[in-house]
Amino acid sequence: MTPFPHFEPDPKLDLVLERVIDVPRELVWRAWTEPEHLKVWFCPKPWSVTDCEIDLRPGGVFSTTMCSPDGEKFPNAGCYLEVVHHERLVFTDALLPGYRPAPKPFMTGIITFEVHGSGTRYTATALHADEANRKQHEDMGFYQGWGTALDQLVAHVKTMQTH
Amino acid sequence: MTPFPHFEPDPKLDLVLERVIDVPRELVWRAWTEPEHLKVWFCPKPWSVTDCEIDLRPGGVFSTTMCSPDGEKFPNAGCYLEVVHHERLVFTDALLPGYRPAPKPFMTGIITFEVHGSGTRYTATALHADEANRKQHEDMGFYQGWGTALDQLVAHVKTMQTH
Repeated sequence: MTPFPHFEPDPKLDLVLERVIDVPRELVWRAWTEPEHLKVWFCPKPWSVTDCEIDLRPGGVFSTTMCSPDGEKFPNAGCYLEVVHHERLVFTDALLPGYRPAPKPFMTGIITFEVHGSGTRYTATALHADEANRKQHEDMGFYQGWGTALDQLVAHVKTMQTH
Repeated sequence: MTPFPHFEPDPKLDLVLERVIDVPRELVWRAWTEPEHLKVWFCPKPWSVTDCEIDLRPGGVFSTTMCSPDGEKFPNAGCYLEVVHHERLVFTDALLPGYRPAPKPFMTGIITFEVHGSGTRYTATALHADEANRKQHEDMGFYQGWGTALDQLVAHVKTMQTH
């Protein structure tokens, strides 16, 4: 892994989901970085992702539009901060593409992918500005939502392997 | 220069100061990236910089404390987003070190340094979330303040050259 010594999660402010999954790291990376794959798994069903834009470099767009079961759309715009091929993605909604400060900052996401036997140790961390935002995210169902999305990712990656 | 095609300043939202200065790029870079130099010029006198912390890498701290003539201190905390040696610095107060969303985001700064004969073409751009923040920054004296600071930078760099 590329060293990143200036980051330590703070349990008062951050939420972390870590799990070993039985799919190879390269495909998990593709599921996170190619819109046609990300749209399949990123939102716990019956919600869906109707649009996804990815420009995979620091300052490049990472945006998704989530759609509720009754058709209401919720766009999320942000940008990447770090892109370390196969190892690590950092993105935030505190900055829009090109690093412009965003009107409604909420979180930074750090996703790390480590080879673990034939599978992957997957760690997703959400950083927040304060305890209130952390609590709001937890109350929105962070653990269940990100956990269910990860189940969907694993199931989808297994279909990628057979093609 | 490293290409950065996803950024174009928006005149409604951004402020830009561009000037050719008669000091070499490597020294201008040092004046921006070494605390003992930055503290000398960064604030238009009679304001001063009492503290400066620099960890020159993406996600690393960039913080300064400005001190008014009557001794009141104003800390500014943020982090670097891009560090391209001698060419380009990007930093923001929308994210704290380690990319944590900040409580009071205001601007992203992009400083570019281009060789221009024996001098430097210097471009400082401030990006804002909306027109209100741009106007606030302009009313705070962006052009005069950043211009005066640049005069101080040039004067300081000329003393560096003689050592």
